[in-house]
Amino acid sequence: MPITPVILSGGGGTRLWPLSTPETPKQFLALTADETMFQLTVRRVMDRSMFAPPLIVANAAHAELVEAQLADIGVDDATLLLEPCARNTAPAIALAALALADAKSPMLVMPSDHVIANPAAFAAATAALLPLVEEGWLATYGITPTGPETGYGYIQFADLQRDGVHAVSRFVEKPDAPRAAEMIAGGDHVWNGGIFLFRADIYLAVLAVHAPDMLAAAQAAMAEAERFDNQIHPHAESFAACPSDSIDYAVMEKADRVAVAPVSMGWSDVGSWDSLHEIGAKDHHGNTTIGAVRLSEASGNLIHADGIRVSVHGVENLIVVANGSEVLILPRGASQKVRDFAKG
Amino acid sequence: MPITPVILSGGGGTRLWPLSTPETPKQFLALTADETMFQLTVRRVMDRSMFAPPLIVANAAHAELVEAQLADIGVDDATLLLEPCARNTAPAIALAALALADAKSPMLVMPSDHVIANPAAFAAATAALLPLVEEGWLATYGITPTGPETGYGYIQFADLQRDGVHAVSRFVEKPDAPRAAEMIAGGDHVWNGGIFLFRADIYLAVLAVHAPDMLAAAQAAMAEAERFDNQIHPHAESFAACPSDSIDYAVMEKADRVAVAPVSMGWSDVGSWDSLHEIGAKDHHGNTTIGAVRLSEASGNLIHADGIRVSVHGVENLIVVANGSEVLILPRGASQKVRDFAKG
Repeated sequence: MPITPVILSGGGGTRLWPLSTPETPKQFLALTADETMFQLTVRRVMDRSMFAPPLIVANAAHAELVEAQLADIGVDDATLLLEPCARNTAPAIALAALALADAKSPMLVMPSDHVIANPAAFAAATAALLPLVEEGWLATYGITPTGPETGYGYIQFADLQRDGVHAVSRFVEKPDAPRAAEMIAGGDHVWNGGIFLFRADIYLAVLAVHAPDMLAAAQAAMAEAERFDNQIHPHAESFAACPSDSIDYAVMEKADRVAVAPVSMGWSDVGSWDSLHEIGAKDHHGNTTIGAVRLSEASGNLIHADGIRVSVHGVENLIVVANGSEVLILPRGASQKVRDFAKG
Repeated sequence: MPITPVILSGGGGTRLWPLSTPETPKQFLALTADETMFQLTVRRVMDRSMFAPPLIVANAAHAELVEAQLADIGVDDATLLLEPCARNTAPAIALAALALADAKSPMLVMPSDHVIANPAAFAAATAALLPLVEEGWLATYGITPTGPETGYGYIQFADLQRDGVHAVSRFVEKPDAPRAAEMIAGGDHVWNGGIFLFRADIYLAVLAVHAPDMLAAAQAAMAEAERFDNQIHPHAESFAACPSDSIDYAVMEKADRVAVAPVSMGWSDVGSWDSLHEIGAKDHHGNTTIGAVRLSEASGNLIHADGIRVSVHGVENLIVVANGSEVLILPRGASQKVRDFAKG
């Protein structure tokens, strides 16, 4: 049975301001390649012998953007599930599960704003997880840590269930630095990358037990959904009544049979300008540049120029982001400060 | 007899790129105040009891800009002497001298892109120089040095001719650092600020002796000049044949009776982004900002935002200049590197 890709594109986010804005969140920007992260995510599941046409869960305000970016890469078989409001990931995935024609169909749930540099490793993990998923497990991809990051949730794994797949013992929220170091040292923790694989009926069954209000609201919203061509519009009032929660809290932490495939696949959540420097191609002086950038005696910088030329001489380890209306400058390592500027 | 201000606005220059461009050289930009340096220069000679209406010598390509900036400050009695091509200062001043109705009229020749923070001191120096000028001396304003700058020419002065005015012993080209320090230590050198006061007939008489070809070309250009309303257009071919030279080389260094008034008047030639930081108002952290700038934990920076917002966190001693199409970033002290960027 082919896997249905469910691509979550509802994110807003200000961490990549000034380029990301509520009108154009980061998944719709070409920050890491010539194509946008949304387009790269869709491309990962283009093989129709393995994947059904994708279901895109997006903010209704971004419908035209999604359609245009799909058309741009020649994808004409996607369905758009357009959220009338944002209720976090668990309800979004509930809508998607209810939209699937075949309840036993495996859903591959992916954020649309992550980078996966090694898609073969991703595919191998999917293949390893699939048999357990078909048996009714909820599965997740555990990113092999590259350091004691405090910005991610962690997953502790237990026994090997089959080659490359472990039972999950518990989910751990974003830790402080000593706790992160301890988990890394233990060797039995991976990062929670927010990518999931499970059958629609199993997900809905877990919701029925642990979040029945959420399931009821999602069912009501889908019962009265309007459908035009390839678009599904859930009923706005019903969905507005849905509790807001993440899949991690509402489902994964509470379910019984949860599996994880530890995988090293060049993953990044592109959560900051610093992470773009980490994953970006660099010149001989450690500079990552995008757009019209001129450098002289400069090293270790991330310079992103969008529709404006940036000329830099004699500076080190700066983040510089410019578009036609805003310029941001801060040292590498301080990119969390972007949020303060993004507000005003 | 009122003094005729002759304002030299023909400069191009790339030292304040990206804001200054061949289309809009720095004198036409509001870099130091709400008004442009050209407008501030015109304002310095607005008192019609002392000054005749100004004669503006400008590049013909900037005629509309000059007219608009004059109108903006309510000056409607200026004459524009529009150069068909640039031949440096000596020929430009020759055209101006020939344009004056009264040959014995004193001309106050001023670049249009300098800042004078203390106009009262400037006026006092003018008053001190005027009696010698009326007797036929060529006079210049000697800027009291604030340090051993290597970017300016120097003037060595000799005997006091009258209160506040010395005879010039010689002009010194831009020195190296040890030579500059030596001159400062001697106490008998001032900077050559490029501001002059002399009678038109005396200037032309010196030209006749030391640069007769230049005088002949300027005379030919003015003999066939076309005049419309307040504009004078010297004959293009005649002026193109004129040798190109500065007033310092062609006239001041060679003339006999040359006087200098040492004066401390808050002068700056605004020759670089660094000089704009030097003369600019600063916040408690030593930042000079113009335009829409947001700072957080930043010190010692010059940030100039023109039509675009600049948000800066956690950086020190940078020069940042942004307009809608270009962003320039370099450390303070390195602003001479601008020239390399301005070329391309």
